[in-house]
Amino acid sequence: MTCMELRPIGVIHTPFACAPGTPIQSSRAEGAEGTVDVFPEFAQALQDLDGFDRAWLIYWFDRAAEPKLLVRPYLDDRPHGLFATRAPVRPNPIGMSPVRLLRIEGCRLFLADVDMLDSTPLLDIKPYVPAFDHLPADRIGWLTGKVPQPQRADARFERGGV
Amino acid sequence: MTCMELRPIGVIHTPFACAPGTPIQSSRAEGAEGTVDVFPEFAQALQDLDGFDRAWLIYWFDRAAEPKLLVRPYLDDRPHGLFATRAPVRPNPIGMSPVRLLRIEGCRLFLADVDMLDSTPLLDIKPYVPAFDHLPADRIGWLTGKVPQPQRADARFERGGV
Repeated sequence: MTCMELRPIGVIHTPFACAPGTPIQSSRAEGAEGTVDVFPEFAQALQDLDGFDRAWLIYWFDRAAEPKLLVRPYLDDRPHGLFATRAPVRPNPIGMSPVRLLRIEGCRLFLADVDMLDSTPLLDIKPYVPAFDHLPADRIGWLTGKVPQPQRADARFERGGV
Repeated sequence: MTCMELRPIGVIHTPFACAPGTPIQSSRAEGAEGTVDVFPEFAQALQDLDGFDRAWLIYWFDRAAEPKLLVRPYLDDRPHGLFATRAPVRPNPIGMSPVRLLRIEGCRLFLADVDMLDSTPLLDIKPYVPAFDHLPADRIGWLTGKVPQPQRADARFERGGV
């Protein structure tokens, strides 16, 4: 087995210093703007990314509390299995967000629809491609009827939070 | 900075022993079936996942070749920046696939639309939610006009491959 160790490829900057008030999904972020500074050693890997309207950012939930198996998510009052939620308190605290690419200047990406904390370590960038990423999924379990409005986080999943 | 070390939460089983012939995306997998064995210590975290038609599997490309900054992807003859592609030869070799959940029996998930190699280490499971994951993205850069057909991989990104 390869050693599964990660190294940051850049840093994400957003207006959100702590969980309370942070949007809980890109699609609920109401256009919130941020930037990514990709480390210069990866500059060449950004070539042609500016042709895409949107990209997946893969990042590390560096301020999430310890993993839990059952969580009470933001969008429901009842507990659910962690893997049936998008809560950050995961065995491998990896987040993914389909942000909007406004423009790229050198190694800096200008973004909209950001929903992560300021200074979050970036792990990967992948182009967002509707032909790959839009798949039919009618049944959405406990989330049925619960995803219409913008929604903000609170401190429940933050390290040292309540 | 938290130490960014990953631990597998399970193993993905598919019909694909090596890259040549493996589908390159879930959406191009023509229903190929597989399973996930989640390790028993995470059983409780699967609660309520069976309500969802589809889930994101997050996994480790354990047999990918060394990272490259420029790659010639399966769907084009010209090189592109790695972060403008979904090729597996990434600084952090993390893959994500929106597979179909057929059923769950204990810690075993029965899946369709699998596009990963057999025995791939699983890192995370997240519910697939169109309200979160379907976002507008008209411009898809170099992929414009290149994503209509099913497509299979070859050995170019495999460790020891050509």
